[in-house]
Amino acid sequence: MVESTSKLEKAAMKRLLERDVTLEEIAELVYDLQLPYLDNLTMELCLDNVKAVLRKREVQNAVLTGIELDVLTEEGKLTSPLQEIIHNDEGLFGIDEVLALSIVNVYGSIGLTNFGYLDKLKPKVINRLDTHKDREDEVNTFLDDIVSAIAAAAASRIAHSQPEVDDKFVDESQLEL
Amino acid sequence: MVESTSKLEKAAMKRLLERDVTLEEIAELVYDLQLPYLDNLTMELCLDNVKAVLRKREVQNAVLTGIELDVLTEEGKLTSPLQEIIHNDEGLFGIDEVLALSIVNVYGSIGLTNFGYLDKLKPKVINRLDTHKDREDEVNTFLDDIVSAIAAAAASRIAHSQPEVDDKFVDESQLEL
Amino acid sequence: MVESTSKLEKAAMKRLLERDVTLEEIAELVYDLQLPYLDNLTMELCLDNVKAVLRKREVQNAVLTGIELDVLTEEGKLTSPLQEIIHNDEGLFGIDEVLALSIVNVYGSIGLTNFGYLDKLKPKVINRLDTHKDREDEVNTFLDDIVSAIAAAAASRIAHSQPEVDDKFVDESQLEL
Amino acid sequence: MVESTSKLEKAAMKRLLERDVTLEEIAELVYDLQLPYLDNLTMELCLDNVKAVLRKREVQNAVLTGIELDVLTEEGKLTSPLQEIIHNDEGLFGIDEVLALSIVNVYGSIGLTNFGYLDKLKPKVINRLDTHKDREDEVNTFLDDIVSAIAAAAASRIAHSQPEVDDKFVDESQLEL
Repeated sequence: MVESTSKLEKAAMKRLLERDVTLEEIAELVYDLQLPYLDNLTMELCLDNVKAVLRKREVQNAVLTGIELDVLTEEGKLTSPLQEIIHNDEGLFGIDEVLALSIVNVYGSIGLTNFGYLDKLKPKVINRLDTHKDREDEVNTFLDDIVSAIAAAAASRIAHSQPEVDDKFVDESQLEL
Repeated sequence: MVESTSKLEKAAMKRLLERDVTLEEIAELVYDLQLPYLDNLTMELCLDNVKAVLRKREVQNAVLTGIELDVLTEEGKLTSPLQEIIHNDEGLFGIDEVLALSIVNVYGSIGLTNFGYLDKLKPKVINRLDTHKDREDEVNTFLDDIVSAIAAAAASRIAHSQPEVDDKFVDESQLEL
Repeated sequence: MVESTSKLEKAAMKRLLERDVTLEEIAELVYDLQLPYLDNLTMELCLDNVKAVLRKREVQNAVLTGIELDVLTEEGKLTSPLQEIIHNDEGLFGIDEVLALSIVNVYGSIGLTNFGYLDKLKPKVINRLDTHKDREDEVNTFLDDIVSAIAAAAASRIAHSQPEVDDKFVDESQLEL
Repeated sequence: MVESTSKLEKAAMKRLLERDVTLEEIAELVYDLQLPYLDNLTMELCLDNVKAVLRKREVQNAVLTGIELDVLTEEGKLTSPLQEIIHNDEGLFGIDEVLALSIVNVYGSIGLTNFGYLDKLKPKVINRLDTHKDREDEVNTFLDDIVSAIAAAAASRIAHSQPEVDDKFVDESQLEL
């Protein structure tokens, strides 16, 4: 199947790359999440599902908005006190989680658990994003949540597409996601 | 394309019919919501989109759970005080809105507005469900919110599939919904 | 009771005023929403509840973030395509609703209905914000949703504090909101 | 301050106890979550915050509805296929997470992370609820998510009340929660 890529989808992927996040790194998170449930899981399948998540308009909007706020904060362009709140990734600022939730919800509430798990333990790329924050000039307040949310959504999409694994009440007609 | 219908999808549609709600009535709500934005809107397109919403697993779960609670309340099978709360459709009980939100969210946050509008003004079938409540033996505490939510989600799905109408940044590759 | 005002609360109120939205205008929306349910409703009570909503940290975060994005868009400081999307208040951009939902949720899901209703019908101040958009230099993509959400949340807070009106199962100990 | 306890609050606490969940067990989860951030944390403070969460109407509604569905499923009183779905705690059924989210949201989105973490790793009481499911006659599909959500919400409430720990922009006037 030839797949064209929308302008917004390209813009969201470009933004992720500019922030040094590859789709393969997100796919790795998905692989680790889903391996316990699927024997025949491949990195290719995980990557395909990450790409499918990024084709969703709601996801593109959240990616573009969150990274924009990170970058503007790096550039010192926000007004006070929002500038300091995002710069310091204050614990009581929850708008990053709010945007992340809008990504996770695209494949339903079953993704909440994986999102929270990734956001708490910060494995692999998420840890890198989180510790990069120590460099004075880098702000990833939104990006680490966004990456966790995309991975959690992709894991949910795989779960929905392999219903026989944990669910015997759905047949293949459900696969339209 | 031949489209089979999953067991859960059939179960959800059967439940709606048992409660005297037809997909055509929900499609009518969608038609009224979207007519101002789409000159060539047809009832057939609205009905197709209602059916597409009902193919989503998250929606089926919410429909089955909500109607189950309405019916069990009618039969007096819940314990107190939940029995009375749902029977009386208490204003501060928000679990019906919580389930409805899980339906609306499937096509993103743009459906929130239409959901709230339908839930407040209660046009057509929603009004019928709401006033039926006066019959001592009928409880539609969850059903009226569920019907509003399905209609709002179907309207969002149409909006996403006709991006040229309100959005020039998306091309047809976005239509995978 | 002497009430100090936090730095963030002051910042959120200042931002609203800078965008020409007064708390009294938001209170008017609340008054119209709740009048059918409360005979002894006063504008003072509505205003008190708007202020209480603005004391919530989650609300302050959403107000500060949303207005920041509106202002930065006015100043042309966002990157493309986000700049154009927010500038044109694109129908498929739902991040404004996502932020608004985080405000409404502070007092529970019962506020969803009022939020959707206000966002659809755009009475009074919301209409002014919406039509101001015609001036080339003003962007209120986030602000109109934020104002609707604050009003809906304040109406929910009043409903929770007057449980006898629509709910006989709650006593005054519930009033801690 | 003398604190009366509402009818609904008592009903929710009674339901938890009937399902063998004590508030102290939930407080233990909160303690483990918050200990890394607060040197002077006590079990008493955790327990007070669990109780405060249970005073929220939205929380009481979710507790009562979720446990009711667990119990009715145990008694075989639901119709097929919902009976089997809840009985088997099917992976693609997300209504348990949907109800849990309505609890977590009461103290804002910062609780999402802790909820997902608890729901994934299932420490202590959550594990007991989860493995009890192996007994043919016990269903805790909703209850384990509800307990995780109450603990996550209580942890958020503590974080909001100790803003100096992770946030220097809020003063004590924020403590109204």
